[in-house]
Formats: sequence, C-alpha cells, structure tokens
Amino acid sequence: MTLPIGSRIGILGGGQLGRMLATAAGRLGFEAHIYDPAQNAPAAATARYHTAASYDDEAALTAFAKVCDVVTYEFENIPVAALDRIEAHAPIHPGRRALATSGDRLTEKTFLSELGLGTAPFSAVDDLPSLKEALDRIGYPGRLKTRTLGYDGKGQATISIPDDAEAALAGLIGASAILEGHIDFIREISVIAARSIDGAVACYDPGENVHKDGILHTTTVPARISPALRTDAVLIAARILEALDYVGVLGVELFVTPEGLLVNEIAPRVHNSGHWTQLGCAIDQFEQHIRAITGLPLGPGTRQSDVTMENLIGDDIGRLPDLAAENIQIHLYGKAEPRPGRKMGHVNRLT
Amino acid sequence: MTLPIGSRIGILGGGQLGRMLATAAGRLGFEAHIYDPAQNAPAAATARYHTAASYDDEAALTAFAKVCDVVTYEFENIPVAALDRIEAHAPIHPGRRALATSGDRLTEKTFLSELGLGTAPFSAVDDLPSLKEALDRIGYPGRLKTRTLGYDGKGQATISIPDDAEAALAGLIGASAILEGHIDFIREISVIAARSIDGAVACYDPGENVHKDGILHTTTVPARISPALRTDAVLIAARILEALDYVGVLGVELFVTPEGLLVNEIAPRVHNSGHWTQLGCAIDQFEQHIRAITGLPLGPGTRQSDVTMENLIGDDIGRLPDLAAENIQIHLYGKAEPRPGRKMGHVNRLT
Repeated sequence: MTLPIGSRIGILGGGQLGRMLATAAGRLGFEAHIYDPAQNAPAAATARYHTAASYDDEAALTAFAKVCDVVTYEFENIPVAALDRIEAHAPIHPGRRALATSGDRLTEKTFLSELGLGTAPFSAVDDLPSLKEALDRIGYPGRLKTRTLGYDGKGQATISIPDDAEAALAGLIGASAILEGHIDFIREISVIAARSIDGAVACYDPGENVHKDGILHTTTVPARISPALRTDAVLIAARILEALDYVGVLGVELFVTPEGLLVNEIAPRVHNSGHWTQLGCAIDQFEQHIRAITGLPLGPGTRQSDVTMENLIGDDIGRLPDLAAENIQIHLYGKAEPRPGRKMGHVNRLT
Repeated sequence: MTLPIGSRIGILGGGQLGRMLATAAGRLGFEAHIYDPAQNAPAAATARYHTAASYDDEAALTAFAKVCDVVTYEFENIPVAALDRIEAHAPIHPGRRALATSGDRLTEKTFLSELGLGTAPFSAVDDLPSLKEALDRIGYPGRLKTRTLGYDGKGQATISIPDDAEAALAGLIGASAILEGHIDFIREISVIAARSIDGAVACYDPGENVHKDGILHTTTVPARISPALRTDAVLIAARILEALDYVGVLGVELFVTPEGLLVNEIAPRVHNSGHWTQLGCAIDQFEQHIRAITGLPLGPGTRQSDVTMENLIGDDIGRLPDLAAENIQIHLYGKAEPRPGRKMGHVNRLT
C-alpha cells in the first residue's frame, strides 16, 4: 500500500542524513517531521515540522507519532522505550529487528555468522579474563570495541601486545565489549541496498571507501573489484535484507580480502558511503529510502556516471572557495561551527 | 565578494521555483527566507524562514529585507513599491533593470530589437484604432497580449481575421497591450544562462520545448539544432545578460525559424525549461542562481547526460504510480489540489 501524497514522514534525528531525507520526502510530495532535541538541528531547515524534544519525553514522542504516517530514523541508537512509544501509533521502518541487530556489535556479528557470511573473528568481552582468552584465540592486533554506541572510531582501542589489554579495557569504563580480530584487507567497499514493503530488492553499485583518522574520507564508484566480487557484494546485501525482513535503505560495509568478502558492519539507514548516488543516479539513496518506507516502487539503482564523493570534515570547509570553482556538486549541512572531526558537508565529483 | 556560509537569502515568491531555490541555498550552506502571502506556500516547507504577508505590507517587507543578506525572486511581477522598500536594506539580484524590462512585453521587445536581436514583429496597442493599424502592418494571424502580467497563455488572444479585433481587445478589459505577429517556427528552444557579480557568464546547452495547451509540456536536451545555431543561442543569451548587467540565472526562449533564431521572451529567473539540469548536470540551475547572487563561482554548465523533463500538470499527478515504476527523477511541489493547468511537479528522465 502506497502512502498518499501529503502523508507525513517522521524522522528521528535531525543531522545531515535527516536533512537529506527530508528534502527527498518533499520532492516526492510528502511532509517531513523531524524529531531532534536541538532547536537548530540541520534537518529543521529543510522539513516543514520539527519537534525539539528529548528522546525520553514521552508526551512529545506520543504527539509526534500520532501525526506521522510512518516513522524512520537517521541513527541506530534510539532508546528502546522511545521506539515502543512511537510504535504504538505509527509503523517504524526499518523495523525493530534491524535496529536490535545493528545496535549491538556482538548481536550483529553473531547474526552475520549465523547467516553464513564471513566476518572478522570476534569474541564477547566482559572482563579481563574473557579479554585475555579472546586475545589468545584471535591473536594480535585485536580491536576492542564497545558493543553499543560509538561511531567514527569512537569507543574503540587497538590491542597490539598483551600488555595493552588492561588499559584498553579500562578505557571502555565498564561497557560491554567485543574483541575483533585484525583483517588484512585489500580495500573496503560498501553496498547501499534497499528493500520494499513487498520484498523487492534493489542495489546500487558497490563504492570503494577510503578512511582518514577513522572517518570516511572518500567513496569512489565503481569500486576496483572483479565482476564476481561485485555480484557477491550484492548477494550478501540481499541476504541480509531478507533475513531482517527489512524495509528501507541499508548500508553494508565489506572488506575485500584475498579470500573474498567479509562483512565489516551494517547500518540500518542511508549511509555516508551512498552520498555519491546524488550525482550518479536518477534516484538517489535518500529518495530510495523514502520510496521504500512509503510503499512506492524502488528505483533500479542504475548508475549514469562515475563519481567520487569526498567528505568535508572540520576545517575542510575552508576549502570551499576552491571547491566551488570546480564542476562539482556541493552539499553543506548547515552546521555552524567546524569542529575537528565534524562532518560539515560533502562534494560529489564526476570522474 | 562571496557571502559567508549561513548568510540569509530572501526569496520573493514561495511556489515551486522558490522551493527549489531554497533547497539549493540550503545545500550551499545558506539559510532561505521565503516571502509569500500563502501560509502553505510550497517553498515554506523547504526553507527555514517564511514571512506570510502580502506584497504591500510595508512593515513586513522592511523586516524581511533587514534580516536578508541578498534578496531574489521567483516571479517577475513584483510591485515596484515592494522592491523599493526591500532595496533600502538589501541588494536585489537580478536587478531592477531586468525586472523592468521583462515585466512589460513592449519594453522587452523594444530592448531586444535595440540590441539587434530578432523578434516577432510587434506594435503597441492602446485602443481599437491602434490595434487596426498594427494588424494592417503586421498581418494575420496576430497575437494580442497584455503588456504586463499574464503567463502560461493567460491574458492573450489570437486575431485571425479583422472581425476578431474588437472582441480580442475587449477581452483585455482596458489593459495596455502589444500585438505580436505570428511566427512560423520549426521548433522552440530555450537557453538557461547565468552571469556572476563579476561578469562571468555560463550557459547550459539549449533545450527543446514542447507546449501543450499553452503550457510547457516537455524540454529535451540536447535540442535538435545545428552546432551553429547552438552557438547563436548562447551568444544571444550572453548579449542579453551583458546588456542588463545581469546577476543570476536567466531563461531565454527562442524560436528556430528558417531564417535563424528569434527571441520569444526572457524570464529574469530560474525557468521551467531548465529543470532538466537537476538530472543532467552536477550543478543545476537552482544552485547556479544561488551561486551567482551570493558571489560564488558559477558552474560551467557541463552536461553529463541527455535528459527529457516532463511537467506534471493537474491530473497528470494521477500518473504517479506508473511514473514511480520508471528510473526517473520525481519532483513534486507539495501542492494540495490538482487543478486543471496547475503545475504539480515534474519528472526528469534519462534518454
């Protein structure tokens, strides 16, 4: 069933992803309603409605859900109580299963393994003895990560030698953790895939990602991989979508290794590594997501051009005059202060 | 001088053009402020600020102009008094000269003729005797048009035989008019061109327009014209931009005739026949306009793909389910009722 024109799409989170989702919703004739505590959230400028309230404000959540025809989100660490309250009044897409799976690194890795997909070796870590046991099994260097929260490299530590273990664990301040083995990968790629309410699946071409200081720096499409690996990547994404009975756009990060593809992580939302679709495709990932959650047919994901997306992080924003002199598509997020590590915008360049 | 990020761009008129301008402004890191009497103006949903006041509300106009760093517009029939009031506090781009010229068909045709550009034969009409004299000189059929206001074929009448003259004139209810001779054109094309504050000019490839019931139906790029005509079209647009000391995007409609190009009309704003740039170019006409009026460098207008833009008029909106099943870019304007002749949206299709 397709939502009629003028239906209201609730979006939890008013950052750049929410902002671009709101714009896409508007293009398709829907009204966007942002829920974000910050009065000056980037998405508030591009959506007709904005509820500025915290994620534990029960009355605000209920009022928000009651006026929305469907609710989606731009980040995965939404308090469960907030989801419960919203779901009493409006459907949430992608669904709870995707959120529960991707919101916990241990649950996610376990889910992927059980699907038969390759991942880095991993082990649950609750204390120093279990960390030491995991290091014995997985070897060095290992990457210790909190099970929940943390992004762009935050809440993580590398353990290169046994003596690093105790300090790394102390740095997590008691949070449940997971140890992941080191992967000697050739490159990192990601697949942006979508699944509709009636189960149709569409994928964009895999993009090749380069990180800098733990943050995505560029995505280039097409990725330098064989046609066989390209097919593998798409099939992996499709299998994950099916298993989660997923509705919406999903980002899947993959490591290319000599032995094939390993899944690094999944994100149940539009993804930074899919921003190239704004220039490369007639229907970009934001429109694709809105189409999926409103019951419209999915776009085919066909690529019209080769593109490199580059993030503008912190002071990169100072390069704007030079960037504006090129034939590139500029997307700024309307954030006031260019703090270090803060994603201020991105550009899409034809290659 | 480039306006800093976060500067506020005032936009007079909150229809679909204002809406897409506001989105482009946001992408470049600017804040959009819509001035439109209608509370539910299409652009209000995509801009951070909206003043819902009439164009003769002096206090509202002043308050609006005071918070804007630059003001632009999506339609050309803005009351002169409103412009005066705004210009006391903020620059208006494109400037008054472009508005005065294009806002009056007689002034416009005279301006074009004096530039040495070809137009349809024309004559001022004030009363029945001057109309008859004009018809004697120009011949039949002639098209009688009000000098000001009127769009999409409104305020116009065709005079096929002498007996039509009186009724045609009566239909204008006393408005000053212009008689234009009939042009037997092969096709209509348009050029979307831009000029920056420092005088740089950039043009998009000419598009070929097809009208239906007096309203633009499709624009296809590239237009089926010779390279020589393509160059002519671009040179004509550049000459108009220079002569008006223009800043911003300008639409120029041209007739292709066996004798060469004739200028049909100019529009001092982003133009419906330039919507194809949203899919065909890295920097579309809306971003180009915002770049021009804020002092950013212009994009080169390079086309990455062949595109056909199709307007969705009135009940065309009912074709949406079928259109959504194709690999096309959909742009709806958020208008509630699909009245006959009302532009509800458009689609861009790769060809």
